[in-house]
Amino acid sequence: MADVRTALAEVVGEEHVLAGDAVPPEYGRDESLGVTGVRPDLVVRPADAGQVAAVLQVAGEHGLPVTARGSGTGLSGAAVPRPGGLVVSFERMNQILEIDTDGQVAVVQPGVTLAELDEATAAHGLVYPIFPGEGSASIGGTVATNAGGMHAVKEGVTRHHVLGLEAVLPTGEVIRTGGRYVKTSTGYDLTQLIVGSEGTLALVTEVTLRLRARLPHRAGVLAPFPDTEAVTAAVPRLTGGGLDPLVLEYVDLLAMSAIMQNAGLDLGVPQEIQDAAGAYLLVVLENRSADRLDEDVQTLGEQLAGLGAADVYVLTGDPLRKLITAREGAFWAARNAGANAIVDAVVPRAALARFFAAVPAIADRHGALIGGCGHAGDGNVHLSVFQPDEDALAKVMDELLAAAAELGGTISGEHGIGREKIRHFLALEDPAKVALMRRIKTSFDPDGILNPGVLFG
Amino acid sequence: MADVRTALAEVVGEEHVLAGDAVPPEYGRDESLGVTGVRPDLVVRPADAGQVAAVLQVAGEHGLPVTARGSGTGLSGAAVPRPGGLVVSFERMNQILEIDTDGQVAVVQPGVTLAELDEATAAHGLVYPIFPGEGSASIGGTVATNAGGMHAVKEGVTRHHVLGLEAVLPTGEVIRTGGRYVKTSTGYDLTQLIVGSEGTLALVTEVTLRLRARLPHRAGVLAPFPDTEAVTAAVPRLTGGGLDPLVLEYVDLLAMSAIMQNAGLDLGVPQEIQDAAGAYLLVVLENRSADRLDEDVQTLGEQLAGLGAADVYVLTGDPLRKLITAREGAFWAARNAGANAIVDAVVPRAALARFFAAVPAIADRHGALIGGCGHAGDGNVHLSVFQPDEDALAKVMDELLAAAAELGGTISGEHGIGREKIRHFLALEDPAKVALMRRIKTSFDPDGILNPGVLFG
Repeated sequence: MADVRTALAEVVGEEHVLAGDAVPPEYGRDESLGVTGVRPDLVVRPADAGQVAAVLQVAGEHGLPVTARGSGTGLSGAAVPRPGGLVVSFERMNQILEIDTDGQVAVVQPGVTLAELDEATAAHGLVYPIFPGEGSASIGGTVATNAGGMHAVKEGVTRHHVLGLEAVLPTGEVIRTGGRYVKTSTGYDLTQLIVGSEGTLALVTEVTLRLRARLPHRAGVLAPFPDTEAVTAAVPRLTGGGLDPLVLEYVDLLAMSAIMQNAGLDLGVPQEIQDAAGAYLLVVLENRSADRLDEDVQTLGEQLAGLGAADVYVLTGDPLRKLITAREGAFWAARNAGANAIVDAVVPRAALARFFAAVPAIADRHGALIGGCGHAGDGNVHLSVFQPDEDALAKVMDELLAAAAELGGTISGEHGIGREKIRHFLALEDPAKVALMRRIKTSFDPDGILNPGVLFG
Repeated sequence: MADVRTALAEVVGEEHVLAGDAVPPEYGRDESLGVTGVRPDLVVRPADAGQVAAVLQVAGEHGLPVTARGSGTGLSGAAVPRPGGLVVSFERMNQILEIDTDGQVAVVQPGVTLAELDEATAAHGLVYPIFPGEGSASIGGTVATNAGGMHAVKEGVTRHHVLGLEAVLPTGEVIRTGGRYVKTSTGYDLTQLIVGSEGTLALVTEVTLRLRARLPHRAGVLAPFPDTEAVTAAVPRLTGGGLDPLVLEYVDLLAMSAIMQNAGLDLGVPQEIQDAAGAYLLVVLENRSADRLDEDVQTLGEQLAGLGAADVYVLTGDPLRKLITAREGAFWAARNAGANAIVDAVVPRAALARFFAAVPAIADRHGALIGGCGHAGDGNVHLSVFQPDEDALAKVMDELLAAAAELGGTISGEHGIGREKIRHFLALEDPAKVALMRRIKTSFDPDGILNPGVLFG
């Protein structure tokens, strides 16, 4: 241990190695509800890719498991280290290296947060359009989990915007993948393989991100519907209706009430409409022209009315921002309300109705309260499960995730497998694919030093 | 040989095995200028994934190299088999299995052509927006090369639209990756790893593609500029100008003349403007509203005039379709004119000017004539090189591709490495990355039966 510490201090400097009791417990946790934190033996804070490579070499020589850490806002325990392990914190690698306005790309270090990047791109009239709902998340963390968020219905997810990486392989080499272009056909796409690999293949030390023009005009429409069936039937009509919504969110009554209370929001929906509502849709449109936006909001209102909305409430400016922030905070609202687990399943958009129809029976069967909201436009359902009994909770999760998988969906849309969903991943995924992924893992990391225990258990 | 043939006939039926002299030479060629065709010993035409798996098992047992074949329209020789090899032709697996209008996805077999899919999606008001320029190309082939085309500036490339695959591994398992959703964070992205792998990792037997609404209104603007510098300076202003062009193509005088002659097109550009032009930009806009399109074309015209265009010519309907078709046929025009090689390099958009500035000196140094056109909006430059001397041609290609790599670009944007660019790939790519790709290859294909000699040589 003293040897390792000395070797690491030689790489990053004494002041950037934390060991034993000097390690703040925060370095052992993320925000997942189901994974207990583990304080690492060691934390290093490298300054550049060369130091990261040297740290990995030390770790390899001493057989030390290595877990990368950004802001620690993950929801599946992928940043929770192995006992006795080493955490590589990217807090010092937090520079926006370039906003290339001609190329419409940003080049950033992994410790940059989404909020910092948003501020920097705004100054150039550009935007990195992926908003997973937590501005303090690090870019490195969002790359590791392939973070999604509310804009995926229009913009796709992190992987669709990562054009290139600098990454350190566990074998010590620093590689560069991709570049400032969207097109390439030159061998296997290492960029896309590393995105979403939850720190198990390589440590990302620089990210090249695709930006687009920031549109100045935005409006949201909140529409109460009589029931969930009407909402799920409306979703494909709205995604296919030509207006190309930036956000298309579903919020059930439980989630709406929690969001409103948590945010202290009053959206001006009359009490009798609230009483008759069974669920809500929130649709946000963007445009570079205010006139076109007005026209589109008008069209959207007509579409929603035709699909059975009880009424429509147009929100812009501050009220819209507040509602979006409150919706982004739905996880915190659920946590504050005592939720025991959060579901992050995806089902094909056309199968949303069948998924929602299956939920009440699962809840009843195991005495759970289940409610939530979700990115209806892209089929990503976040449910909060209230059931403090561990065995019953496990059964609820098993059945909800199996239902998603049976409908052709997936057990994690944007939070990742981490340490939390390994059991479900191994139970529901094709063993041939898991075996192939293990072989790919070995092709990157023959000694298994990167984030052991994550993904494969 | 007789053994193998019998075993294959048991899998696919006698009539779907071609052997020896009965193999039409077409099965040994694609459209690359630099790779000589090789007639395979055997061709099989499987009907489904089960047959493909059984064929791979036979090939594995007999150590037979296997090359997948779609329509044979590739430009880098990735569909050219090994001598003595087996070609798996997907011509019978040519069904559009589903157009899912609610989910806005198509599920197709690999032998479906882009033109067939375009016709089928049009009937539903949807479009698969990737147009690599050859409607007879098979979907399987475009997945294997990660085909791009003119719309990449707005739509991205094939990989951005492939949501899921069914694929047969060389180890015999049939796997399904991804699904009818855009969001997933459940392990390594096998879909994206197989896309662009040129038939070296797995044989794709089904593809799930993301569609979008087909916009009814389209207009093109052709703008002559005094010189190449003015064109390259205009490109980032146009991509960042808010109009979100569907097409942003650069055409030099040599290419414009060849395109026009080949297509017998007269675009109404007066002779004195043609005489003063140094290069052209072609910009295409799309909209769901005719009025908005008109407004946008007006704005685009003003932008182009402000950027130095000598004039603007608005094209719609048949003349626009003809020009696009002629531009898509630029490869054939160049081939008919006797081009000896086609460049498919990519440079960051902001570096286009520096790349074009380097070209004349390379041409002069080796006595070559170099001209062309390209997807300026995404930095993908197609140059036709006229130099019949093999050594001089090799030097021209070496220097052009090295120039692209030095500018942070890549040596193939959309045609792939295949057999044609292996030398450049191995010379210009980081050896650590090539070694990693070889390990990934082994993790899929331990016995190396899939397309040996492609990509790695």
